[in-house]
Amino acid sequence: MLKRKIINLSVSDVRFPTSLEQHGSDAMHPDPDYSVAYAVIETQGGLKGYGLTFTLGKGTEIVVCAVKALSAFVIGKHLEDIVDDFRGFYRLLTSDGQMRWIGPEKGVIQLATAAVLNAVWDLWARAEGKPLWKLLVDMDPEKLISCIEFRYITDALTEKEALDILLRAQDGKRKREEQMLQEGYPAYTTSCAWIGYSDEQLKELCMKALNDGWTRFKVKVGADLQDDIRRCSLIRKMIGPDNVLMIDANQRWDVAEAIEWVSRLAEFKPLWIEEPTSPDDILGHAAIAKALAPLGIGVATGEQCHNRVMFKQLLQASALQFVQIDSCRLGSVNENLSVLLLAHKFGVPVCPHAGGVGLCELVQHLILFDYISVSGSLENRMCEYVDHLHEHFTNPVIITNASYVPPKDPGYSSEMKDDSVKSHGYPDGEVWQKLLAS
Amino acid sequence: MLKRKIINLSVSDVRFPTSLEQHGSDAMHPDPDYSVAYAVIETQGGLKGYGLTFTLGKGTEIVVCAVKALSAFVIGKHLEDIVDDFRGFYRLLTSDGQMRWIGPEKGVIQLATAAVLNAVWDLWARAEGKPLWKLLVDMDPEKLISCIEFRYITDALTEKEALDILLRAQDGKRKREEQMLQEGYPAYTTSCAWIGYSDEQLKELCMKALNDGWTRFKVKVGADLQDDIRRCSLIRKMIGPDNVLMIDANQRWDVAEAIEWVSRLAEFKPLWIEEPTSPDDILGHAAIAKALAPLGIGVATGEQCHNRVMFKQLLQASALQFVQIDSCRLGSVNENLSVLLLAHKFGVPVCPHAGGVGLCELVQHLILFDYISVSGSLENRMCEYVDHLHEHFTNPVIITNASYVPPKDPGYSSEMKDDSVKSHGYPDGEVWQKLLAS
Repeated sequence: MLKRKIINLSVSDVRFPTSLEQHGSDAMHPDPDYSVAYAVIETQGGLKGYGLTFTLGKGTEIVVCAVKALSAFVIGKHLEDIVDDFRGFYRLLTSDGQMRWIGPEKGVIQLATAAVLNAVWDLWARAEGKPLWKLLVDMDPEKLISCIEFRYITDALTEKEALDILLRAQDGKRKREEQMLQEGYPAYTTSCAWIGYSDEQLKELCMKALNDGWTRFKVKVGADLQDDIRRCSLIRKMIGPDNVLMIDANQRWDVAEAIEWVSRLAEFKPLWIEEPTSPDDILGHAAIAKALAPLGIGVATGEQCHNRVMFKQLLQASALQFVQIDSCRLGSVNENLSVLLLAHKFGVPVCPHAGGVGLCELVQHLILFDYISVSGSLENRMCEYVDHLHEHFTNPVIITNASYVPPKDPGYSSEMKDDSVKSHGYPDGEVWQKLLAS
Repeated sequence: MLKRKIINLSVSDVRFPTSLEQHGSDAMHPDPDYSVAYAVIETQGGLKGYGLTFTLGKGTEIVVCAVKALSAFVIGKHLEDIVDDFRGFYRLLTSDGQMRWIGPEKGVIQLATAAVLNAVWDLWARAEGKPLWKLLVDMDPEKLISCIEFRYITDALTEKEALDILLRAQDGKRKREEQMLQEGYPAYTTSCAWIGYSDEQLKELCMKALNDGWTRFKVKVGADLQDDIRRCSLIRKMIGPDNVLMIDANQRWDVAEAIEWVSRLAEFKPLWIEEPTSPDDILGHAAIAKALAPLGIGVATGEQCHNRVMFKQLLQASALQFVQIDSCRLGSVNENLSVLLLAHKFGVPVCPHAGGVGLCELVQHLILFDYISVSGSLENRMCEYVDHLHEHFTNPVIITNASYVPPKDPGYSSEMKDDSVKSHGYPDGEVWQKLLAS
């Protein structure tokens, strides 16, 4: 077989001026311009793989710089050699003797790793002619395990235990795949209640979402307690007692403040409080989780959890009741696989973070795999959905009956439209040229 | 008074080809080229401040890119306004609504924050005509507290508790300052036993160090157990039973492996095992510390601990017995102040990480402040020293009788020689032009 040599990796700084309308605004990020560092790898035969990592505007150029630095590890390699020892390739990118100092496996360099490896996974799935979730579902369990870096997590999950989880889940796999193709994966919406939205906007969007069949709603909180009480009350009244409400503070509080503030919102029966404090504070999340358990409120976190070592500890410390993986914060599919398996070992449901730019497109693949090949359960599980910026993708997500419809096109659904990349290129694209001139 | 307006910030990528001789080599970083992102800020009146963050070669350009991104927050500000609300300025850099996504407070962006704020502290100390340690020692405790970001650590240390620590330590301060000026701060050496050194080199360097009066020695371990046993045995024989031996694995192991491996080295009576596993693994370090305590071996870590939230948890979990602050990994003096105070609250000694490029020059100021104004104790305390690259600084460290002599020149000892910056500039400096051509 002719091997596919990677001969090029290009990367773009693509930004959408979402701050103009406060889309995506929360207690810690009042004015995000949803953006991506967008990587395209190309093989000698002309096959391309597309990958991205999500950012909020300023600083995207730093991630772009990091992707360029990582490209030296990719260009010249053959796809087949990479996936033959994907664990080794993961370690090459994340544990280079010089580069690891500026991480390791965190922040800018890990975001860049995600962009590059997302492109490699997209390329692999395209080469196999399958959507990524199907590539994973069909993959031999031993092969899947060989993609995972177990360094630093063997005290919680050994390779053998991980393999056993996958082998046990072979049972009923085809049936669950059928079910997903027919029903889709359950979603919840965050589009109704960004913190910068007025009550009027909130009511209107919530009414529309109810009419569209949504039953699970997330509200941004944490900037002002009286505002939170008013907004939660408003939403709870509109959605009724049986629909699900979640709240999200985006790291606004210290530990004691989180417990006090959320206790004041308990009357609105939120299923979870998301990101109550610093994403690095495992013991803080554990203290919050313990204090809120009697109120029936769980802790959810993960969108800024930078690697598997952090998720491992959150699980070991019973610091979270909902694991929120992110397709672009962790080191791509490889590291997400380890976290899905860790979550299963500890019996904690995975409810992915999505939204931003392309996060819905990507993470739907991972959660489909989780249901079909790992957890086999939908209990307490749902995937975030935000209704923004999908029009810039060549294979945008499809939502039917408030559920993700499994993608059918080959790849990781990560390809953006050429026009979108060009017009939103920062700072030279026409969208930004106009904005910067005015 | 005329305020000092900052009108420029320039940054350079400066690399030293240390990998050619295996200086700095360890189990995870076999071939470091010790480097810095070097920032220079300049005021309207011509006063300059110099700051740096340490890196290992590749990837320095990413940190440089991040420093450039942060310069927008600095240029146009007045030094006096910055230090009037230094906590606010710290938060401006670390919690920008868009930029924080690519951290927050970790990895590349935190390293860049350190470089920029180190330059601001240097500028401040120069403006006051004092070495930085003396600026800190003379500063009113309330003013010191106003430089510290307490977000996310109030469950372990409140502002009030921190102030009380400083106020209590006023007692005996002048005497301790006198003592430091006469005796210096005790140091240990890492220069003898890098992992890439031959046994002959190790013996020779150890003999020389003993002759120079060193009594505390660190050995790199973790690549090969038999090598470690041979090297530790050799060093212990040379230094005798009364001198201090420490071992450093630079994150090489998983948790169980760390316990097993270090147990095999217990016969050589190391004071501590440094970085046994992932720098992110608080619970892992706690498990290792608990297992090794009966052997009389403590756990030391911190050089890759990315912020105060991580140190807080390491202390809360009794995961370390020696706190190793780093002047360029944490967010400059501001964040180091919070960690010194946390360590004191928990009764754990601080033994700074140094070496690299400029780390000795900078961190000596912090540990002098710790002794004089916070801990008041030298028990189980010492500061790392590595005998490399000091010749590139305008005010290099001075070591006498294996102790750091307190610097007397104004500033943070962070200014590099113009010639060194120019000739080692990457990739255009003459040193690299020659190497890249050959």
